[in-house]
Amino acid sequence: MSGPETTPDTRTYRVDAYAAREIAVRALSGHGVDDEACALVADALVETSMRGVRTHGLRLLPGYLDDLARRIANPAPKIEVVRESGPTALLDADAALGVVAGTVGAREAVRRAAQYGIAAVVVRNSNHFAAASIHGRVMSRAGMVGWAMTSASSRVAPFNGRDPLFGTNPVSVAAGADEHEFALDMATSQVCLGTVRERERGGTPIEPGWAVDSRGRDTCDASRAAALSPLDPGHKGQGLGMVVTLMTAVLADAPLDWELDHMERSESGCGRRVAHFLLCLDPAFFGGRGAFDERLRDLIDTTRAARPATGSAVLCPGDPERSSEREAARSGIALDAATARALSELARRHGLPAPPLRPTPRSTP
Amino acid sequence: MSGPETTPDTRTYRVDAYAAREIAVRALSGHGVDDEACALVADALVETSMRGVRTHGLRLLPGYLDDLARRIANPAPKIEVVRESGPTALLDADAALGVVAGTVGAREAVRRAAQYGIAAVVVRNSNHFAAASIHGRVMSRAGMVGWAMTSASSRVAPFNGRDPLFGTNPVSVAAGADEHEFALDMATSQVCLGTVRERERGGTPIEPGWAVDSRGRDTCDASRAAALSPLDPGHKGQGLGMVVTLMTAVLADAPLDWELDHMERSESGCGRRVAHFLLCLDPAFFGGRGAFDERLRDLIDTTRAARPATGSAVLCPGDPERSSEREAARSGIALDAATARALSELARRHGLPAPPLRPTPRSTP
Repeated sequence: MSGPETTPDTRTYRVDAYAAREIAVRALSGHGVDDEACALVADALVETSMRGVRTHGLRLLPGYLDDLARRIANPAPKIEVVRESGPTALLDADAALGVVAGTVGAREAVRRAAQYGIAAVVVRNSNHFAAASIHGRVMSRAGMVGWAMTSASSRVAPFNGRDPLFGTNPVSVAAGADEHEFALDMATSQVCLGTVRERERGGTPIEPGWAVDSRGRDTCDASRAAALSPLDPGHKGQGLGMVVTLMTAVLADAPLDWELDHMERSESGCGRRVAHFLLCLDPAFFGGRGAFDERLRDLIDTTRAARPATGSAVLCPGDPERSSEREAARSGIALDAATARALSELARRHGLPAPPLRPTPRSTP
Repeated sequence: MSGPETTPDTRTYRVDAYAAREIAVRALSGHGVDDEACALVADALVETSMRGVRTHGLRLLPGYLDDLARRIANPAPKIEVVRESGPTALLDADAALGVVAGTVGAREAVRRAAQYGIAAVVVRNSNHFAAASIHGRVMSRAGMVGWAMTSASSRVAPFNGRDPLFGTNPVSVAAGADEHEFALDMATSQVCLGTVRERERGGTPIEPGWAVDSRGRDTCDASRAAALSPLDPGHKGQGLGMVVTLMTAVLADAPLDWELDHMERSESGCGRRVAHFLLCLDPAFFGGRGAFDERLRDLIDTTRAARPATGSAVLCPGDPERSSEREAARSGIALDAATARALSELARRHGLPAPPLRPTPRSTP
């Protein structure tokens, strides 16, 4: 935030969540997004940042605003049902922000699953999904098991490949609440591109298995990374990435990953045509609500109680995010310097007080 | 098949598929399994062996027969609907063979999805599932997208754990047909236990990342492997394994992985209480049948056409199995010596001609 531009500011800044939310709401509103959608997107980005997911929280706000300014994202979409049965729906998102389209889809899935026990909602003509767990948790907060997936532009090589083909194609599965919440949210690549770029900026090597060079060889040099690698073993990771494409683009009759524009290289005036898949199951229709809650608690508690190999405890999906959320509630959201600066500029532009930013060393975020 | 017992016979034997099927049918029938179920199980095991899945084909037959003999598996189960809505059902398998229970569940899912567009069938009180793709492909052969999962007894340590907790918890996702069939079938561990045991018998080290010793350290010594490792990165692999437990045992109100007996250590007289999850989606209810077929072909063809890093082509899930199936149709099923011998003994016991066994060197199966 200070010092010459050439010295990257690698500090973390703590920002008050309410102030950040207000800035996001105002900035989105300035692009003609209605109040409900502003609240929805701002809450989603703040929630994700509070949960410590640096790649998918408020860092995405400037990109979303740019999408709105360039009419890639439609600030006032008419999201419509293209086809439906009781427990299924295909929605056209009318180029809505992906956060909005995914949440509308997830709510639709909850409504239908409450009646039928299960529902699948496929969304097409959307934009960047944000963190998949945003949408999975819309369903789990309603007492459901929620699955959320999205298509994404090519970043990941197939196993034994050398060029990007599949997106990082994330999957979220969410169920339960509070101390017994299960909240998986994972790319089907080893890491996401942001993590590689971060290492590149910091001048440190990337880990073996993360990426391949243009000849398909594993590389630890971030600047030579031509494509991300799928989960290991690679044939399984590739398979999972393809499953996401199958459940999103293929089911939706939407462009496949390699037909999607990258976020930073999209043409103005038309949406990115991203597809999402939302699956929702109501435990009451299977083994019953009480039994489900009890078994889920057992699954989570027994896992956490497993003997660790090292000193740190065995964790469940969502545990690190819950800790981060508590810390953020006490100390503010941890943001990278660029995102903190962007928020300050947005505050200024929209006549809001600049949020107090407290720098902390990167090593203790 | 010959030579002293102390020299392990590591050759592969080619066995005629029809002969193998007939032996399996007679052997199952001898335990009181009805004609339809005999055909179903025999076809499933032969199909899996033809597809080159050595761990889950006819090799499992002696174990299933033992389960029947010991009344762990019920030869004449009454599989009943415990609870249902239109697109959901919870089945009690009455300790059926898992192949039977899973296939009944998959057929039930197809029937319901054809009407509603989606269906989920959860099965409890079942036994060993066999290859998950057996059940996924019951659905894809009906033109659906089929998902199949099963709970399984503890083999896999959590990330940063040292003891087995989760089963190898496989997932199959199947869609399409013939040259454009997508057929993923993967354990959520790096490898299955059979692969580690095979290395141990052969006296060769296992690969880094496959297993941990009793202190949770990665080991290449198969004899020190205390637990299998999840897919890498381990927190993602553990998360996927837990998703399978969630969708099977937790939804079914059935015992969790660590409450299940291992196959070789089950008590006689009661079923293993394994739970399965079958999910079925009809593409006609989403982007439409024609569009789905076209996009799926594009997904598969584009992936196969990706530039490979090495000489061998980029493959799709199911491609190696399809090649193996063709080879088996020409040359017979490739079986390990123990399985080939078991088939010969079963043939003798049931008054069938011993199947001609043609040994081939292990290196050219």
